[in-house]
Amino acid sequence: MKFITEDFMLQSPVAKKLYEDYAKNMPIIDYHCHIPPKMIAENHRFDNLTELLLGSDHYKWRAMRANGVDEKYITGDATDLEKFLAWARTVPYLIGNPLYHWTHLELKRYFGIDEALSEKNALDVWKKTGEKLKKDKYTVRGLIEKSNVEVIFTTDDPLDSLEYHKQIRESNFKIKVFPTFRPDKAIDIRKDTFLQYMDKMEVRSFDNLCEKLKERMEFFHQNGCRISDHSLSYVPYTNGNAESVFMKALRGEEITDREEAIYKTHMLKICAEEYSRLGWVMQLHLGAMPNANSHMYKKLGDYSGYDSANDLSIAESLARFLDSLEADDKLPKTILYTLNPKDNYVIGAIMGSFQKGPDAGKIQFGPACLFNDHRDGIVEHMKCISNLGIISRFIGMHTDSRSIVSYSRHEYFRRIMCNVIGEWVEAGEYPKDYDMLKKIIEGISYKNAKKYFGL
Amino acid sequence: MKFITEDFMLQSPVAKKLYEDYAKNMPIIDYHCHIPPKMIAENHRFDNLTELLLGSDHYKWRAMRANGVDEKYITGDATDLEKFLAWARTVPYLIGNPLYHWTHLELKRYFGIDEALSEKNALDVWKKTGEKLKKDKYTVRGLIEKSNVEVIFTTDDPLDSLEYHKQIRESNFKIKVFPTFRPDKAIDIRKDTFLQYMDKMEVRSFDNLCEKLKERMEFFHQNGCRISDHSLSYVPYTNGNAESVFMKALRGEEITDREEAIYKTHMLKICAEEYSRLGWVMQLHLGAMPNANSHMYKKLGDYSGYDSANDLSIAESLARFLDSLEADDKLPKTILYTLNPKDNYVIGAIMGSFQKGPDAGKIQFGPACLFNDHRDGIVEHMKCISNLGIISRFIGMHTDSRSIVSYSRHEYFRRIMCNVIGEWVEAGEYPKDYDMLKKIIEGISYKNAKKYFGL
Amino acid sequence: MKFITEDFMLQSPVAKKLYEDYAKNMPIIDYHCHIPPKMIAENHRFDNLTELLLGSDHYKWRAMRANGVDEKYITGDATDLEKFLAWARTVPYLIGNPLYHWTHLELKRYFGIDEALSEKNALDVWKKTGEKLKKDKYTVRGLIEKSNVEVIFTTDDPLDSLEYHKQIRESNFKIKVFPTFRPDKAIDIRKDTFLQYMDKMEVRSFDNLCEKLKERMEFFHQNGCRISDHSLSYVPYTNGNAESVFMKALRGEEITDREEAIYKTHMLKICAEEYSRLGWVMQLHLGAMPNANSHMYKKLGDYSGYDSANDLSIAESLARFLDSLEADDKLPKTILYTLNPKDNYVIGAIMGSFQKGPDAGKIQFGPACLFNDHRDGIVEHMKCISNLGIISRFIGMHTDSRSIVSYSRHEYFRRIMCNVIGEWVEAGEYPKDYDMLKKIIEGISYKNAKKYFGL
Repeated sequence: MKFITEDFMLQSPVAKKLYEDYAKNMPIIDYHCHIPPKMIAENHRFDNLTELLLGSDHYKWRAMRANGVDEKYITGDATDLEKFLAWARTVPYLIGNPLYHWTHLELKRYFGIDEALSEKNALDVWKKTGEKLKKDKYTVRGLIEKSNVEVIFTTDDPLDSLEYHKQIRESNFKIKVFPTFRPDKAIDIRKDTFLQYMDKMEVRSFDNLCEKLKERMEFFHQNGCRISDHSLSYVPYTNGNAESVFMKALRGEEITDREEAIYKTHMLKICAEEYSRLGWVMQLHLGAMPNANSHMYKKLGDYSGYDSANDLSIAESLARFLDSLEADDKLPKTILYTLNPKDNYVIGAIMGSFQKGPDAGKIQFGPACLFNDHRDGIVEHMKCISNLGIISRFIGMHTDSRSIVSYSRHEYFRRIMCNVIGEWVEAGEYPKDYDMLKKIIEGISYKNAKKYFGL
Repeated sequence: MKFITEDFMLQSPVAKKLYEDYAKNMPIIDYHCHIPPKMIAENHRFDNLTELLLGSDHYKWRAMRANGVDEKYITGDATDLEKFLAWARTVPYLIGNPLYHWTHLELKRYFGIDEALSEKNALDVWKKTGEKLKKDKYTVRGLIEKSNVEVIFTTDDPLDSLEYHKQIRESNFKIKVFPTFRPDKAIDIRKDTFLQYMDKMEVRSFDNLCEKLKERMEFFHQNGCRISDHSLSYVPYTNGNAESVFMKALRGEEITDREEAIYKTHMLKICAEEYSRLGWVMQLHLGAMPNANSHMYKKLGDYSGYDSANDLSIAESLARFLDSLEADDKLPKTILYTLNPKDNYVIGAIMGSFQKGPDAGKIQFGPACLFNDHRDGIVEHMKCISNLGIISRFIGMHTDSRSIVSYSRHEYFRRIMCNVIGEWVEAGEYPKDYDMLKKIIEGISYKNAKKYFGL
Repeated sequence: MKFITEDFMLQSPVAKKLYEDYAKNMPIIDYHCHIPPKMIAENHRFDNLTELLLGSDHYKWRAMRANGVDEKYITGDATDLEKFLAWARTVPYLIGNPLYHWTHLELKRYFGIDEALSEKNALDVWKKTGEKLKKDKYTVRGLIEKSNVEVIFTTDDPLDSLEYHKQIRESNFKIKVFPTFRPDKAIDIRKDTFLQYMDKMEVRSFDNLCEKLKERMEFFHQNGCRISDHSLSYVPYTNGNAESVFMKALRGEEITDREEAIYKTHMLKICAEEYSRLGWVMQLHLGAMPNANSHMYKKLGDYSGYDSANDLSIAESLARFLDSLEADDKLPKTILYTLNPKDNYVIGAIMGSFQKGPDAGKIQFGPACLFNDHRDGIVEHMKCISNLGIISRFIGMHTDSRSIVSYSRHEYFRRIMCNVIGEWVEAGEYPKDYDMLKKIIEGISYKNAKKYFGL
């Protein structure tokens, strides 16, 4: 049974035209992903389809668990073929889930397979793809090139030596790979990892910490970094003596909620001010709830599919944080993300209060991410921006994934985006002004991001 | 004017096929309702349409109040005919409200009436139905049989003698009726009813309380109970000395918010661990706000239409509660419900972190309930599960009602469910694989619940 | 390129019929707006299109900022023509934003222009409209008359002399203009403006304050006021000694969160009780976050587009506040608004618990407002009311704007409303009963509000 046609997700003639003529061939600026730079530097080659499709995609692991598959066949000691078969048995149940679409886009775009995957054809697919994966075009670099990617921003720890970025830069790889500065470990003062991280940073005092962070930003800047990233349950705004909280933590004393908020507020502010000075973009991912299932997290580690989403009230302190930067004229370009769509409207409203020329779309509402990047989440997010702001200035999709084949999610996003805009045009809510529509679609697909990140 | 056609709520050829061929004739597993077992045991006979349709349906009472009807004609001393006429005058105003659909499904499926109800034909309807209600097929048991119900789980207090369940079991009634263990009164430590309930339980100490609850669970288990239920504004997770809170309450002292959370956390945990041991399913209804209008509640009592929905942040403590059970390998099968759709996404995300084989869909997101069980609520809920999990493994609709004719809400749900899935197929988002579609539709309608509850 | 056709926003034959036959020609009851009464009293004449369209519409300012326009061309010292050109350059980017629709409705309905506005035709539009604005039909009164308005409720401070309302009343203006009592400045005890306002009220004691407020209500009542309004982040319900909080504030001492809640609870209660006595309608606008960007607010003042929306939990204290009034039989007719759609469902559920005859729709869920009044917000709000209550009893749209041409938003609302209801009818979810549909559409457009406000 065939799946993924030319018109996939495109429900109207205008939608089809917008996708075919304007969106389809635009390159990808992947301004936020989790691909390990080592894989690119070493041009990793995949053993088989399981490693490529399932090896680093915890969305698929979650789906298999929800389908009752034993962990042995997910992250355990079953063979790769057994794991793939368990996945193939799960896929037909995934009606309405984006994995159903992503999986088939992955098979179609990278292997030319357009049969719906199931137990029946699983072995056949395994063999066909196995042959191809031996070819040079199927290395990490080959797959990235095939995906029409122009620039990648990886996500990196401040202490990273960026050696892989250097290796990539010095190789003949045509695609630019830049680091992103993500100092979560220096900010999550109540996490187990904090003291160990301070040790690793060789930090002895609060001033010392702040200096070290700025040094690392400078180092990242020299290595092409222009973006930072923070993962938070909410953006705090509580003023107080951050230094004394820090000293308490160094002494191993317990930190209260309020003290944590004071420390984080201070650290986010000094980071933001430095980003502003350096001309960087600040990314704030709100609504995070890492490792909801701590038991399984301890067993399997990061990126195993045990994260969840939070639902705190975020508006007041977020606005006050941005306001405090704006008052000092130190608010950098900012991308606000939320993992919880209940925040969409508030982010849309708040960002409208901090927009300011000369940058069109200075404050961005980042694309629907973690568990939100399905058709309905993408549509809801687009409608939020368009109702409250200017979708034409949206910097579009990122990948937010560790999996190379996740680049097919850009096609998914663009098809859905063209379908929504096409629907508006078909309904007479915007004229058939194809000059403007070209500008809008190309902008959201590629050009807005290129301009926004100064590439 | 005719209403309710064959194709009601089915907007596409695929939707019609799915409903007609797969959903329509599936039996009903009503795993959560509020039908008094006494009514079934005594095979109650209804005086007239008012008693059947309006007598125990506070949704209709709320609608009449919103329409400006005097309480006299709702719960007051007007005659049953006057009350029915007041309802018939209200119905034409209910455009867009599920009551418009439920009312006509009730008239159509139980009485063959397919005229839109209004003042004009009200008397005619009153007479026609009056005739029928005298027949044996229109007793409580007759109506349940007519509804193609296979199993009913009622909602019961731990101290209930379950005598009616016994009577039913010993009668010739073909439909199985099991109790559900709902220990809210032993857990709501700050409610007026608490001390009185402790008295009734003959509880003198904290250990005593815990033992008694376990005894009652054992008794319920012997009477076929396999499900528990808790109604909460949120699931707390605050550790502390629950016994001392309990003793304070026994002494009549005031309990703080924090103490309440400590007590509830402890009680929910020991209950959950026991459910896990017994192999029961745990139901958690979140977002409850009972008796928002306390004045009218005092006048009219429970189930009078004065409840509302809450909007607290639920994610963090819910995740920690489930996590604490999972860490000890004592997390039972769990159904999470919310009365507030702002929680949909968070529940979808959290449940994904606790799924685990060998049960497919071990953690369920219970169907849209209380004031949420309208077309849009059902669709939103379905999209949440399908986007974040596996709708194919969803255990489907319950009745959540005291009214016998509410079984028509299962038809309502199935039509909407088939329409949503049909839409996906028509749009090319899932192939026309009717073998799988049959499995999926039959599963959600009936088979998944049957398996989930071990029936 | 033509825009705004006859069928704008009407996607089905039934929708078109409902709009053309029932909605289109209904007058407007504008029960909530921010038009300065002075403008009406003095029958202000507009210099040019910039003053009329952009002069008092901060939605447009926000859009220009998001499009990267320099503040000089928004609120700065650029010429009016330059400002209009900056706007015309922004408009084509506003795909999916209600401003795209409102702008073209404004040009079409007031100037007969149906070309899509852009840089290309901007000068032409500027000239054409410039001619017309010189005519008497284009004064404030002329434009209001052209808009088919019957009654206007402005929004006024308790200390306002209402002299402009008197002037209007005594003039030959056919449209009734009533004041609305909005005592925010006497209630916002922590705002900078509080002490100054107490001075202006000549208040020396708490009793004094309460008396003065009642006096002003009486004065407003004599001047035709029948509505009050409160803007709040949430409705508090904390009992305590309000007088002592007030005295602390008078002494210039700092007020805590809890004290603020105590004071506000008390003040809202005494206001509500007085509204009930006077037979007024109480409006509560929740979810407010004024002046999120305090830096720009200080520069540009109120209504400059720097407000945002809040996201606190509102359910519990709102229900308890309404409950406390209901218990004393002093709950006035109430309109609940929210600036945050995450509250829609909770408001819908809570209002259902306080409905009571003989008024149909005694408690109203006010129309989608501030940043919510776009197509999707209007639809979502309508679906919330219809799913949880009775949309047929909804009092419909207000303007909530300072701009005269915002009356075209009523057309926008009515078209969307007819489209939603038409969709239900076309889908067979309500019969083609045109007698009832006429009643429903005319009710929501005009008649319900007329009755509700006793006009």
